[in-house]
Amino acid sequence: MATQDANSAWAKDKAHVLHPYTDFASFKDEGSQVITGAKGMYVTDSDGNRLLDAIAGLWCVNIGHGRREMADAISDQVMQMQYYNPFGHSTNEPAAELGAWLASHAPGDLNHVYYTTGGSTANDAAIRLVHYYFTMKGQHRKKKIISRNDAYHGATYVAAELTGIHATKMSFDKVGEHFINHVSAANMYAKPDDVSEEAYCDYLVREFENRIEQLGPDNVAAFIAEPVMGAGGVLIAPNGYHRRMWEVCKRHDILYIADEVVTAFGRLGHWFASEDVFDYQPDILVSAKGITSGYVPLGVTLISDEIYDVISRPQCEGGVFSMGLTYFGHPLACRAALTNVEIIEREGLLGHARMMADHFQSSAQRLKSLDHIGDVRGHGLMLAIELVEDKASKKAFPITKQAGANVFKNCVDEGVIVRPVGDKIILSPPLVINEEEIGKIFSVLGRAISSI
Amino acid sequence: MATQDANSAWAKDKAHVLHPYTDFASFKDEGSQVITGAKGMYVTDSDGNRLLDAIAGLWCVNIGHGRREMADAISDQVMQMQYYNPFGHSTNEPAAELGAWLASHAPGDLNHVYYTTGGSTANDAAIRLVHYYFTMKGQHRKKKIISRNDAYHGATYVAAELTGIHATKMSFDKVGEHFINHVSAANMYAKPDDVSEEAYCDYLVREFENRIEQLGPDNVAAFIAEPVMGAGGVLIAPNGYHRRMWEVCKRHDILYIADEVVTAFGRLGHWFASEDVFDYQPDILVSAKGITSGYVPLGVTLISDEIYDVISRPQCEGGVFSMGLTYFGHPLACRAALTNVEIIEREGLLGHARMMADHFQSSAQRLKSLDHIGDVRGHGLMLAIELVEDKASKKAFPITKQAGANVFKNCVDEGVIVRPVGDKIILSPPLVINEEEIGKIFSVLGRAISSI
Repeated sequence: MATQDANSAWAKDKAHVLHPYTDFASFKDEGSQVITGAKGMYVTDSDGNRLLDAIAGLWCVNIGHGRREMADAISDQVMQMQYYNPFGHSTNEPAAELGAWLASHAPGDLNHVYYTTGGSTANDAAIRLVHYYFTMKGQHRKKKIISRNDAYHGATYVAAELTGIHATKMSFDKVGEHFINHVSAANMYAKPDDVSEEAYCDYLVREFENRIEQLGPDNVAAFIAEPVMGAGGVLIAPNGYHRRMWEVCKRHDILYIADEVVTAFGRLGHWFASEDVFDYQPDILVSAKGITSGYVPLGVTLISDEIYDVISRPQCEGGVFSMGLTYFGHPLACRAALTNVEIIEREGLLGHARMMADHFQSSAQRLKSLDHIGDVRGHGLMLAIELVEDKASKKAFPITKQAGANVFKNCVDEGVIVRPVGDKIILSPPLVINEEEIGKIFSVLGRAISSI
Repeated sequence: MATQDANSAWAKDKAHVLHPYTDFASFKDEGSQVITGAKGMYVTDSDGNRLLDAIAGLWCVNIGHGRREMADAISDQVMQMQYYNPFGHSTNEPAAELGAWLASHAPGDLNHVYYTTGGSTANDAAIRLVHYYFTMKGQHRKKKIISRNDAYHGATYVAAELTGIHATKMSFDKVGEHFINHVSAANMYAKPDDVSEEAYCDYLVREFENRIEQLGPDNVAAFIAEPVMGAGGVLIAPNGYHRRMWEVCKRHDILYIADEVVTAFGRLGHWFASEDVFDYQPDILVSAKGITSGYVPLGVTLISDEIYDVISRPQCEGGVFSMGLTYFGHPLACRAALTNVEIIEREGLLGHARMMADHFQSSAQRLKSLDHIGDVRGHGLMLAIELVEDKASKKAFPITKQAGANVFKNCVDEGVIVRPVGDKIILSPPLVINEEEIGKIFSVLGRAISSI
């Protein structure tokens, strides 16, 4: 096999890259699939296989792969001003322009942006900003953060501690357990059948209120939540959940951090989902991924006027706000984001995503009659299919069966990439998807699932 | 002033960007200088001022600004394969190629790379990897990290906790104090005049050994240090310090993490400084900045064969190594890095940097006779000038005098950008600097310092 030559990318990757989210038991033999090309809805591997990318890279390539307009804008920015530091009273045009764009499109008074290099750093920064904010207000004990089981908030040490997919944290240390707490996921699939949606929502809200009481409202600084839990398995909250959790936060002067790394920039058919889809107004909104469609690493932490007013008070004579990454407001990243939103706007991709979402979700529901499907759930262009050994009891497959991994392999053999997370199959296609491609994904997926 | 129009980048930045390392007392009136262009050694602001960039953006633009070859390579990569996720057995060509390049150029057996988006995330990852490593070895208590006062290691919450410039951490919480410790900086400028360099080094090594004893060697996992402390003020260690600290680490099975975010990729005239300049072999080496010359955000955490062997053991049946950023091994970033090192190699910039460094450091020393200069120190193309009110006693200026800020302003007025950090003036020019530009920097700086 040509790709297995010692000088191939395959061999170099296997020998030298410490692969993330990898099972080394098989990696050391198999190595990685090398993705060598990408265009529109498709990627190509080093063996020449052309694959329909039904996961948009990793929830991010919203405008599709390999767009000339992005290449030109990025290249133009390199030649005009590729980098200068953003510290101490200096800035660049794309960072300033994007700041204004975000302020005018984000919900409510989220008018101020702190730039980072991705979702993890943006969530990490959100926590630092929350702590700084309450210190500046003299509330030195109001520092605890409540997150949720099955949440995914990233991979800096603190972002990983926010994360509630506890299996991903095994063998790392609990460096944040003194200030980070987890309550239950909001997960309609986990709701017992004999409990109503409303009663389930009541339960979750009450658990949250109890936790606040246990910790002491004066000690709780913020609640962080994805509108739809992503890597946890596209978990859908009961109706009204976010609004009610937000109301609890308001009552106790607790900041609501919306982690919209996945849900913003069109994945749910809107620029941002918090207000437009779920009817609440976060105090802090974190995004990344779709903001540049993954073309250049970028994250943003948007904060409200109220938080900005407090943070931007000089903490002492000559004191500076001492926090920032070298690549804060990177010109290439911000220029890529500006071009990306221009494309989304000009091509009407939010409306297109909403239209395709209906077709996508209803096509998915048609799979539900298959054996071994315990649940099909989603929102917008996010979808999870829960594979089970026994449909009636929702009994899981034994881990050794590798049901998710086998469905993934079957799909790839038929030219479609889906994402297995345990025995969940997750889809998050580019917004530019059309009906024919949706048809292909679900017919391939149907066969792949039927054959396990 | 045209730039102060409400629609200008200046106004948008002031209204919407939460500015890092900014004194808001003046920011709210003055806003930011907008850097609109960059080419070679120069940047241009929105008022048309052309400024010699003697700080390389922020210790990073090693090959100089706005290079066509970088624009073309990045643009080409966008069209070929701009992004696909690197999780679970998939990779891309630039990430694989760069992994092999790093393995063949980094000291010793640092043959494995974990990719991030900058120095902060690479240091943050280093700590997670250290904890994971010792857990996998069954040494569950060996988790404490020793860092140094005046160290700078970044701005994720954990990287900020590693940082020993304590003023930058005020008003944030001490989320890492249960596992992060600081010993003294290695700072020849702080050495009392009546103590020999050797005795000073003995003192630092003894302090480190004592700290290890206090914490218990079985509890100490790693020591992290910059070869030359950067943001702390280009602090130079006594001769032999790093080698001796490394020997102490070896004796106690403590990992040595070299933070080469600033010092690698030519700043000290070599690809990496640890071994070539300071004669020790780190177990983990972190870099960023110069790796892409800042064109695209990228960080790397290089680990030894021994650490890789342990980390890449499956932790349990079906267990995966659950750590990774969406932008791990980003194709644009890795391609930019490959093109960057190709340029450094082809143009002989390491040798050029060594040659220019001699001229740069000796030109700097000639300023030493000026009033108000307490120290001039540096290594390679890193330099700090310590401004003092009284030369003989090294008495500092009162903070209200803003000596550093005034020198900065005087230099900008004459077309040169330097970096004030308190009353230190820091220089770190692109490697492509020539003798004439060095001459200009120091004549401007001489006048700027004379006039305070």
